[in-house]
Amino acid sequence: MGTVKSKHPPSTMIDLAKAGELAKQLRVDSIRASTSAGSGHPTSSMSAADILAVLVARHLRYNWDQPHDDFNDHLIFSKGHASPLLYSIYKAVGVVDDKELMTGYRRFGCRLQGHPTPILPWVDVATGSLGQGLPDGVGVALAGKYLDKLPYRVWVLCGDSEMAEGAIWEALDKASHYQLSNLIAIVDINRLGQRGATELGWDIEAYAHRVEAFGARAVNIDGHDLEQIDQALASAGNGGGSKPTVILARTVKGSGFSEVEDREDWHGKPFPADMAARAVAELGGERNLVVRGPMPPSSGNPSASKERSTLKLPTYKIGDKVATRKAYGHALTALGASHPRVVALDGEVSNSTYADEFAKAYPDRYFEMYIAEQQLVASAVGLAARHYVPFVSTFAAFLTRAYDFIRMAAISQVDIRLVGSHGGVEIGADGPSQMGLEDLAMMRAVQGSTVLYPSDATSTAFLVAAMADRSGVNYMRTTRGAYRVLYNHAQTFPVGGSKTLRSTPNDSVTLIGAGVTVYECIAAADRLAQDGIQARVIDLYSIKPVDAAAVSAAANTTQGRLVLVEDHHPEGGLGSTVIEALVSARVPSLQIAHLSVRELPGSGTTSELLGAAGIDAQHIESAARGLLGLR
Amino acid sequence: MGTVKSKHPPSTMIDLAKAGELAKQLRVDSIRASTSAGSGHPTSSMSAADILAVLVARHLRYNWDQPHDDFNDHLIFSKGHASPLLYSIYKAVGVVDDKELMTGYRRFGCRLQGHPTPILPWVDVATGSLGQGLPDGVGVALAGKYLDKLPYRVWVLCGDSEMAEGAIWEALDKASHYQLSNLIAIVDINRLGQRGATELGWDIEAYAHRVEAFGARAVNIDGHDLEQIDQALASAGNGGGSKPTVILARTVKGSGFSEVEDREDWHGKPFPADMAARAVAELGGERNLVVRGPMPPSSGNPSASKERSTLKLPTYKIGDKVATRKAYGHALTALGASHPRVVALDGEVSNSTYADEFAKAYPDRYFEMYIAEQQLVASAVGLAARHYVPFVSTFAAFLTRAYDFIRMAAISQVDIRLVGSHGGVEIGADGPSQMGLEDLAMMRAVQGSTVLYPSDATSTAFLVAAMADRSGVNYMRTTRGAYRVLYNHAQTFPVGGSKTLRSTPNDSVTLIGAGVTVYECIAAADRLAQDGIQARVIDLYSIKPVDAAAVSAAANTTQGRLVLVEDHHPEGGLGSTVIEALVSARVPSLQIAHLSVRELPGSGTTSELLGAAGIDAQHIESAARGLLGLR
Repeated sequence: MGTVKSKHPPSTMIDLAKAGELAKQLRVDSIRASTSAGSGHPTSSMSAADILAVLVARHLRYNWDQPHDDFNDHLIFSKGHASPLLYSIYKAVGVVDDKELMTGYRRFGCRLQGHPTPILPWVDVATGSLGQGLPDGVGVALAGKYLDKLPYRVWVLCGDSEMAEGAIWEALDKASHYQLSNLIAIVDINRLGQRGATELGWDIEAYAHRVEAFGARAVNIDGHDLEQIDQALASAGNGGGSKPTVILARTVKGSGFSEVEDREDWHGKPFPADMAARAVAELGGERNLVVRGPMPPSSGNPSASKERSTLKLPTYKIGDKVATRKAYGHALTALGASHPRVVALDGEVSNSTYADEFAKAYPDRYFEMYIAEQQLVASAVGLAARHYVPFVSTFAAFLTRAYDFIRMAAISQVDIRLVGSHGGVEIGADGPSQMGLEDLAMMRAVQGSTVLYPSDATSTAFLVAAMADRSGVNYMRTTRGAYRVLYNHAQTFPVGGSKTLRSTPNDSVTLIGAGVTVYECIAAADRLAQDGIQARVIDLYSIKPVDAAAVSAAANTTQGRLVLVEDHHPEGGLGSTVIEALVSARVPSLQIAHLSVRELPGSGTTSELLGAAGIDAQHIESAARGLLGLR
Repeated sequence: MGTVKSKHPPSTMIDLAKAGELAKQLRVDSIRASTSAGSGHPTSSMSAADILAVLVARHLRYNWDQPHDDFNDHLIFSKGHASPLLYSIYKAVGVVDDKELMTGYRRFGCRLQGHPTPILPWVDVATGSLGQGLPDGVGVALAGKYLDKLPYRVWVLCGDSEMAEGAIWEALDKASHYQLSNLIAIVDINRLGQRGATELGWDIEAYAHRVEAFGARAVNIDGHDLEQIDQALASAGNGGGSKPTVILARTVKGSGFSEVEDREDWHGKPFPADMAARAVAELGGERNLVVRGPMPPSSGNPSASKERSTLKLPTYKIGDKVATRKAYGHALTALGASHPRVVALDGEVSNSTYADEFAKAYPDRYFEMYIAEQQLVASAVGLAARHYVPFVSTFAAFLTRAYDFIRMAAISQVDIRLVGSHGGVEIGADGPSQMGLEDLAMMRAVQGSTVLYPSDATSTAFLVAAMADRSGVNYMRTTRGAYRVLYNHAQTFPVGGSKTLRSTPNDSVTLIGAGVTVYECIAAADRLAQDGIQARVIDLYSIKPVDAAAVSAAANTTQGRLVLVEDHHPEGGLGSTVIEALVSARVPSLQIAHLSVRELPGSGTTSELLGAAGIDAQHIESAARGLLGLR
């Protein structure tokens, strides 16, 4: 281990009496901040104040002046509504001043938002949608144990209400499966949710049974007894052997202010000024302690040293039939060879998504998440927070299971890559439950997202590589079946671009598809050509951002006549993005036929289902003729 | 209890030897059906064949000729990929013939789809997205115990892989909370998932600990020992006291065919014809047993007798400030008085969504789901399958947690109503984690959905009532803040309609909003009017279906100039639906300004955040002037 390089001298261990003072300060400041803002959750902060005071003063190993030091522990507030407590801690360690706390909390343009987001350098992931901080913490802990191989611990403060979220149990299941003894969840069991009592109240034994059954070590404490807290944190911080630790702390909501302690109807409400004054008085008045707890055992950024080598993407022969999901596996594996920070995760379908090729080549950088899509995405969020480059795969349909996590990933401003296979009715016999038909709409609506839907293996490989270097939430849809390679490896596929596959100066109609419908558009164009009708064909592999210039130029050339074809519901996908781009570009006299999956599909062959949905070559041809008045 | 009215005489109890023969037939038919289809999951069917044979022959109380009899037990295949087994059961009880099984499985236009859907009269809910059948079953069991008050049992066959889904644990948590002793989960623990071993393998004890910790009774059996199966089913069928029962059955994947038993790489693969022949031979050849198990204790549809009375919706005074979320609570409560099948569910935020008003008035028809949005929606699906009229509420943002369940609800073809409060940046200080900004896109993309976004209390109340009688997935977005009542109670708000709030023959620009942005459009129109600019204002309360006629007429009147304003990300919401409608109607010369939430918002006041997103009156006015060349 290296030496401690902090500007601050290593603190002498703060004693429990001082930690107790700190706890009072955290309560006072939580009250003051929320009352000043006129909103926030003081009582939910007060229940956890003793625990956090002891944690920050005596156990959290953190160099507050170097929040991006790889050796720092991680502190995640899964109960993000306890933000007054978190921000009061930031004041107590001297990184936020009292003025900011009193004038910047929950205010416009300020960084102390209602729920924590990573615009603060000490925050790893955005929380506020309950049940996500612990799953995200599993991702950070996976990085710590298996990739960084650093001694940091991941401390996650959970609320008791959020223990009803299935995602919490996905997280504990994976934490025990991966033996994440570097993960410590602290459950603030104050017995009261937003509208009344929680399901389990103060039945700590019931929580303990569940936690232990899921493979974690349970430690039951009185969350207001500093000695018990201290012992539990010390024990947890030393690692739970091969197990994660869950500290089950019996607490009192609003603890420290007798008027609200253990009372219903005080969730999420700041105290009026007079009440706040009484509360502060009862807690012994304002304090301005500045405390620093233990420093990490070392410092620096050793995990940043991994260098990339030249990427050699797979190449394909034009005309060969290769499924894009397979090309994903090839390209991901190639990327793995060149980019040591690339990691892959899958939800127990890696032999369908072809993530298994990466898993075989780089087992140390592959994390099997089994059938738990929420944790699948959350793990990627946590890994991305540790600067890894995660690629997540499952069926496109099943990414809907993780939409809240995907939405929150955008708020966390992490860079993740999601790949949904088996898009659309194209999959055939398995039927609608397995068909991704909402995924493009869902992913487009995510703030700052990128949405890709390549048709062939060459473009897939290129775009997989491009995704590695993109920020935000990046989504690629892949297709089940094997289709002709359309492009040679010298071609490029910039995000936001498109490929024009058929084009003459005399084109009278434009056919736009993506993925499997590109082939149907080509076939339709060939049929139309037999009658002397020239159709422009565009492969719109980039759904967001969209190639507005190409589609506008095509629309102008073909007198506004376009057939838009997608293996997706009519709302929010390819059709929407093209129509919006054309209207935005003020292309005149639009005559658009939008072919998409409007009825509930069933089982069948690919061609039967494409036909039934009206998105096959025959329907495209017919729609094109209709636009030309030839029907 | 009434008398048994089946055309079939009550069967004498089928003995275990015959059940064993039936199990072989189910295996043989599962193999034959999947091989004939060239796709499907024979090995996942074979592991559960013994259990299902004993269940159907001796315990499931079901009148196969009257699938809609209220007294029937319910049989849900949460492991929907075991559809060959389910359909082989249908053959064995004589409701599907061998020809249909051999020529209709997984074929186009046929009802024996790849995964079960309710186009079959014996199927309650669509499955195939793992981890959903048990949560749906909780909804059916809630109906049985608390609403129907009928003695039927809900038997759910689960796979072991899906036990990794958090939703399973949300389901068991709620099943024990609501003491659903009428719910029996049978877990087919064949140790093998799609791509290899499951997390817990055959560690039945680990499963038992989890199940018991979540408050269920665990019964461990050898899933191929007919005596053990029989005793476990008998015991479970008698009810677990106040607990649900989970039968943990150790089984062998591919059981009955030595070439594949307990082998990896045989998931989801039909046997080639020669293998199938060997398998059928090993199982003793084809059989055509027709068996009927026990009948329900009575028959009929007593739960259908509840009659509706006249609905008296709340009324509001124009100009009063009332939040639409509050109007939802009022209207839902009024609906509860008139419509005895209306039930309400909420995810521990009923004092924010105002579902608590219904809960206070009709506690017997309110189900608190705590913070478990997947189970929240699944319960509604199960209740709808029992012909109740569920209204589900939580924050719009948190409905993203249940998107897979919402998608599957559409495939289940159930009629449910979802109400998402706190839409958009309008909510203010809580910040982006609590802001629904993807919900309109997400809900529009659901097959057959309806999406409503009323601006005022009167229209909200009207539309809540309308939702009660609509089919499919119906979504309403409500707003946090209180805004002026715009309409009197004599007005109507048909789904698919809109309200034109400002209109003259000389309108030069159209402003379209919904929800909170309607008020911003009105304010902008007032400002423009001061300069003599007449703006048409449309309240587009129905996002899907959209009032294409009104928006087209407005666009034509105002020379194609429209400002579309939404408190939502730019993709897939109000803007998309209007633009698509206008292009579809071929309105010429469109000049559209689309104002929406494009950047990541933070905390702030409503007016600060509407301003920052560029969706307030000032930005609307400016956009309108821009369209008119007056900027």
